[in-house]
Amino acid sequence: MKHYIGIDLGGTNIKGALVNENGEIITQTTCPTHADQGVEVVTETIANMISNLAKDGTVSGVGIGCPGMVDDKNGKVVYACNLGWVDYDVRTALKELTGYDVRLVNDANAAALAEAVVGAAKGAESAVIVTLGTGVGGGVVIDGKLLTGYTGAASELGHMVIVADGEDCACGRKGCFEAYSSATALIRMTNTAMEKHPESVMHQIATTNGGVDGRTAFAAQQAGDVAGEEVVKEYVHYLSIGIANIVNIFFPEVIALSGGVANQGENLLVPLREKVGQQEYGAAYTAQHPHIVCCTLGNTAGMIGAALFDKN
Amino acid sequence: MKHYIGIDLGGTNIKGALVNENGEIITQTTCPTHADQGVEVVTETIANMISNLAKDGTVSGVGIGCPGMVDDKNGKVVYACNLGWVDYDVRTALKELTGYDVRLVNDANAAALAEAVVGAAKGAESAVIVTLGTGVGGGVVIDGKLLTGYTGAASELGHMVIVADGEDCACGRKGCFEAYSSATALIRMTNTAMEKHPESVMHQIATTNGGVDGRTAFAAQQAGDVAGEEVVKEYVHYLSIGIANIVNIFFPEVIALSGGVANQGENLLVPLREKVGQQEYGAAYTAQHPHIVCCTLGNTAGMIGAALFDKN
Repeated sequence: MKHYIGIDLGGTNIKGALVNENGEIITQTTCPTHADQGVEVVTETIANMISNLAKDGTVSGVGIGCPGMVDDKNGKVVYACNLGWVDYDVRTALKELTGYDVRLVNDANAAALAEAVVGAAKGAESAVIVTLGTGVGGGVVIDGKLLTGYTGAASELGHMVIVADGEDCACGRKGCFEAYSSATALIRMTNTAMEKHPESVMHQIATTNGGVDGRTAFAAQQAGDVAGEEVVKEYVHYLSIGIANIVNIFFPEVIALSGGVANQGENLLVPLREKVGQQEYGAAYTAQHPHIVCCTLGNTAGMIGAALFDKN
Repeated sequence: MKHYIGIDLGGTNIKGALVNENGEIITQTTCPTHADQGVEVVTETIANMISNLAKDGTVSGVGIGCPGMVDDKNGKVVYACNLGWVDYDVRTALKELTGYDVRLVNDANAAALAEAVVGAAKGAESAVIVTLGTGVGGGVVIDGKLLTGYTGAASELGHMVIVADGEDCACGRKGCFEAYSSATALIRMTNTAMEKHPESVMHQIATTNGGVDGRTAFAAQQAGDVAGEEVVKEYVHYLSIGIANIVNIFFPEVIALSGGVANQGENLLVPLREKVGQQEYGAAYTAQHPHIVCCTLGNTAGMIGAALFDKN
């Protein structure tokens, strides 16, 4: 059985794994990124990790999941703001240090590939993975292949406008899906509701938990709080619009959610499925509807997907 | 060289062509659909057209572009409201009448495939075709393959919401791209502006041309009319939001516009390119940007694409 190395290069930590062709992790390792020490130091850290992981057997390929924009054709990280890398030829650098020609993939796309091939959407013909975290990321896998676009920049699902002229988004547009469906957006909605509703149990929940977070409104809803329920409804309303857009554009077999908000599980999925179903184009004429589920690989998805990308 | 038959099945006319593998039309024909005479009569008309076109040589495949929702796997038209067809096994019926196993493709997707392979986006790695007509249709072609989704229902780009809780759309959602960027939407914006601006030259233009249509505001703008210019700006604003969403989702090499509004050519494309460029994710970090152009095949695209779909 062939083996691949997958590196998940984050702003804080670098995670690496030796993965077999079925996507199973054989060994894994992690260490701090130390991005502030400069690009050479980080590159050496990655090279050492690759060399250590490669000791365990014959390696058929190495993939690196990077934050930001990558150009796999030319082996470059085009722009990664968390690392401070611009137009960096990481392939040539790592070839010199390790002997391997690494493949590059956006980190969110890597995680999506792993979930599509061996995780939540295993066996599905097509899958879209949507990450509801600080931002909204995503990845699209059709017939086992990642959609990367002609520059590798595709699948920025979070930067699809759903509210023309709406809330400012970090990308410069107004009204992006990310500005309404990230954990950050949910926290904004929660804070606004708390200001309006001093009687809401959200105040006590936030105090107990050391502040408002993406769980506050859901916890309040489960405690029977009306204002909390309204926040959840508002959040699910916008989330359902973005997810239904994805349905009408891709009609994938599976849509799998990850990120902090997805930890709500069925509390989120039950109302979401109902509202997305109402917005699915031509839903009345087909018995086949996309399955909306949660991701299953957790924080190993990035490494596994980076490893499988070379095989992909 | 191999030859294929492509049928473009419309609510009013059926067009058919014998097409070579380069997408060149060898012979073409057309006749009325007579959908009101029932499904058997229409099927016989298609069968006769196929048999006549097949006389000219050996045919390697037959494709039919149908309005509505098709299920190519099972050879069925799932739902085509213009024809009154529901769950109709057209493949079996045509196999009996012609001996050919026909392939089925949505008509907008067929036209997109033709434009991507031999028309406006010939040679491009990926293309999205957007039709700005009575509605907004679309098709996505990546590496020469149509994106059809797991039921064949994908690429309903017009039914992506860009204005949450906005204008009613015929599909049942609110604020769809179609409700802001179709010719129908442009006419709505034009009428609203004309009510507000009795001084606008749009009134004279409409009277001269027998009514308001998708050209009224553009003609007024070119005559220096302020209200007409405002309508064009509003229309391009929303159109640019939908097109920029498509850029951020697919990052295709080419986006090609067709349909009545696209006849404005550079009058539309120049302001559109500028506004889309401002909304393209990560635009500052890459020299590669999608090319926004007009389609080139006109009303032959549907036949050519249906023919090439079997090859696809």
